[in-house]
Amino acid sequence: MTVTAPKGFRAAGLAAGIKQSGGKDFALVVNDSPAATSAAAAVFTTNRFAAAPVLVSREAVAAAQGGWAVPRAVVLNSGGANACTGPDGYDEAQQTAAALARRLCLKTEEVLVCSTGLIGERLPVGKILAGMHLAVIALGATDQAGRDAAEAIMTTDTRPKTAVARPEGGAYAIGGMAKGAGMLAPELATMLVVITTDALIDQATAQQALDQACGASFQRIDSDGCMSTNDTVILLASGASQHQPDNQDFTSQLTSLAQDLAGQLIADAEGARHEIAVKVTGALTEAGALAVARAIVRSNLFKTAIAGDDPNWGRILSAVGTVPADAAPFDPARVGVEINGVAVCRDGQAGEPREKVDLAPRRVDVVVDLAAGPAEATIWTNDLTREYVSINADYSS
Amino acid sequence: MTVTAPKGFRAAGLAAGIKQSGGKDFALVVNDSPAATSAAAAVFTTNRFAAAPVLVSREAVAAAQGGWAVPRAVVLNSGGANACTGPDGYDEAQQTAAALARRLCLKTEEVLVCSTGLIGERLPVGKILAGMHLAVIALGATDQAGRDAAEAIMTTDTRPKTAVARPEGGAYAIGGMAKGAGMLAPELATMLVVITTDALIDQATAQQALDQACGASFQRIDSDGCMSTNDTVILLASGASQHQPDNQDFTSQLTSLAQDLAGQLIADAEGARHEIAVKVTGALTEAGALAVARAIVRSNLFKTAIAGDDPNWGRILSAVGTVPADAAPFDPARVGVEINGVAVCRDGQAGEPREKVDLAPRRVDVVVDLAAGPAEATIWTNDLTREYVSINADYSS
Repeated sequence: MTVTAPKGFRAAGLAAGIKQSGGKDFALVVNDSPAATSAAAAVFTTNRFAAAPVLVSREAVAAAQGGWAVPRAVVLNSGGANACTGPDGYDEAQQTAAALARRLCLKTEEVLVCSTGLIGERLPVGKILAGMHLAVIALGATDQAGRDAAEAIMTTDTRPKTAVARPEGGAYAIGGMAKGAGMLAPELATMLVVITTDALIDQATAQQALDQACGASFQRIDSDGCMSTNDTVILLASGASQHQPDNQDFTSQLTSLAQDLAGQLIADAEGARHEIAVKVTGALTEAGALAVARAIVRSNLFKTAIAGDDPNWGRILSAVGTVPADAAPFDPARVGVEINGVAVCRDGQAGEPREKVDLAPRRVDVVVDLAAGPAEATIWTNDLTREYVSINADYSS
Repeated sequence: MTVTAPKGFRAAGLAAGIKQSGGKDFALVVNDSPAATSAAAAVFTTNRFAAAPVLVSREAVAAAQGGWAVPRAVVLNSGGANACTGPDGYDEAQQTAAALARRLCLKTEEVLVCSTGLIGERLPVGKILAGMHLAVIALGATDQAGRDAAEAIMTTDTRPKTAVARPEGGAYAIGGMAKGAGMLAPELATMLVVITTDALIDQATAQQALDQACGASFQRIDSDGCMSTNDTVILLASGASQHQPDNQDFTSQLTSLAQDLAGQLIADAEGARHEIAVKVTGALTEAGALAVARAIVRSNLFKTAIAGDDPNWGRILSAVGTVPADAAPFDPARVGVEINGVAVCRDGQAGEPREKVDLAPRRVDVVVDLAAGPAEATIWTNDLTREYVSINADYSS
């Protein structure tokens, strides 16, 4: 089950003819509960070229925070990002939201819009409105309806990504779907995520919980260092279970589900042969640990080494050494590196023979100990392969 | 001609058995003029895991700035970086400098050391000292001697890089050699550069001129965003021409020569099919223009697009959009992009059809106009190809 697992939600996904391939490219997720029991929250890209759907959805979420609307529907498409499309692109995203609002008897500010695909091309609005007509008819609460929606938002993804949790013995449910396979980097990744829940939570709790969950999941993956114009993570709560979970419990359940989806994104990253967890320990602060981890996962030389099954710890240290001392103080002569449990570097120089490292498994664990304090942080990434280049050299025009 | 073009210099390059391939891997450059007419300057990596030879050379340059030594010899090797090798690695770099100093009747602080190759492996000191013995005998002022030295510092370079200038109708000469084909990023690149001149200049002028020349050349190339532990640019002046050029003229000649060498580095970048000049115009400040240009040249998605001959300007804008507003203020709705002279993006949205862009030539020109001020800056980079991944997945252990 997916976004339709919690009570009160319907979804649909179908081919509206936006993608040239003819594949599914249009999805809806709708919360049928009244505004009174509902809540919504979202986190968006910080890219200054935020796409038109991001601008439209941001305004809707602001309206929700102001208390005069509760977003209860999301319209999503793949096959085009509607980014860098100027005032016309913005108008078209608005029109799309308004059209769905009319069909569902909602205010325009109660519809969120998400798009993904090539930047700089206008969307075929006619096809989108025609697809919407069919999708509204197709809306269903079944597992299949949720899976159709998850499939319709895929771009270079090789498989749909979904997750479900039923905390407290099934007192309520959380369901999610995500897309993203490249341009994965904070803040956020080229990802669209819709999470639904039938927990009874208020607006403030929804945003707080989502911020915290994203900070520990989607903000901690970095596939290729590239931040997208369209990233959006949405949480819709219907209240239909009539169960009001403890705020902290809910946040922790939401975080687990978000981490599950984030893991699926990294596992399906374009061309990847390895998922790599880069953990930095012994930092003075968590921010310092994050800065060092990010420097490592941004190093093409490190990532190509892992693609070549080469435990080249020198490339790890050369990336660590680029982090300014005020961001993460450490003594280079005390730093250690473990790769898949083998301490290949101790005190800033060679430790165990690198031949001992087994890089055959898909999962790779890198631990860098700065020996400078108690803080730690982990960023997930993947290797940089010939296939990543092939996919990204050939995608688009 | 190369580093031996200016009067007063000898060089040598030979195979000392450090590289497993058996290729040339050991070089010397020696200034035979007395300390009184000589000067030396250097610029080093800012990586916190600076290699042992960098530490040793830094101390020598500090001694020169303090006035109690004038570096007049450089010993260089490929086949091993002597980085992350701990106190033993440092001692070995010191020993190498001391051994050459004894042979040439110089102080230890008058010898600079440069190494390049795999990080984290100790160098075979016996082979280095044996190679030094032969290299001192082989020292010559011929063109061939200079070319041997340029060849001996190559790693994944496909060709040696040299340049010569003879300003003011040949009143003096500047010669240079460089290596570097990957891990090219400021500050600086995985590069070793030795520039010689027989101009009569003082210590302060030497350092000032070199700083300025590097700022406009080696600091403006960024092949793969990875900063090395061993980067070193050295200027040795013999004074042997007895010609004292105007400081500004000398700096400008030195800058041209450095730009020539920097261009050769980018042209030989690992696996590259394109050299790309990313020029940012209309910035409020030069620092802002640089920040935007660096964001673009660090984008794997942009660089894979160019590898696929795809003028994907959306990936350019999505990289530009990651630069914080306080670093480079601009209005996304006014930004324009030209690729090879075609204005594919105007006012933040599609301009001329992208099909008009011809990406067949090796050289690619990207101009991003921020429409926010008078400042501009250019960074040179190259595309990210399957071959880059192959080279870097298979290099080293």
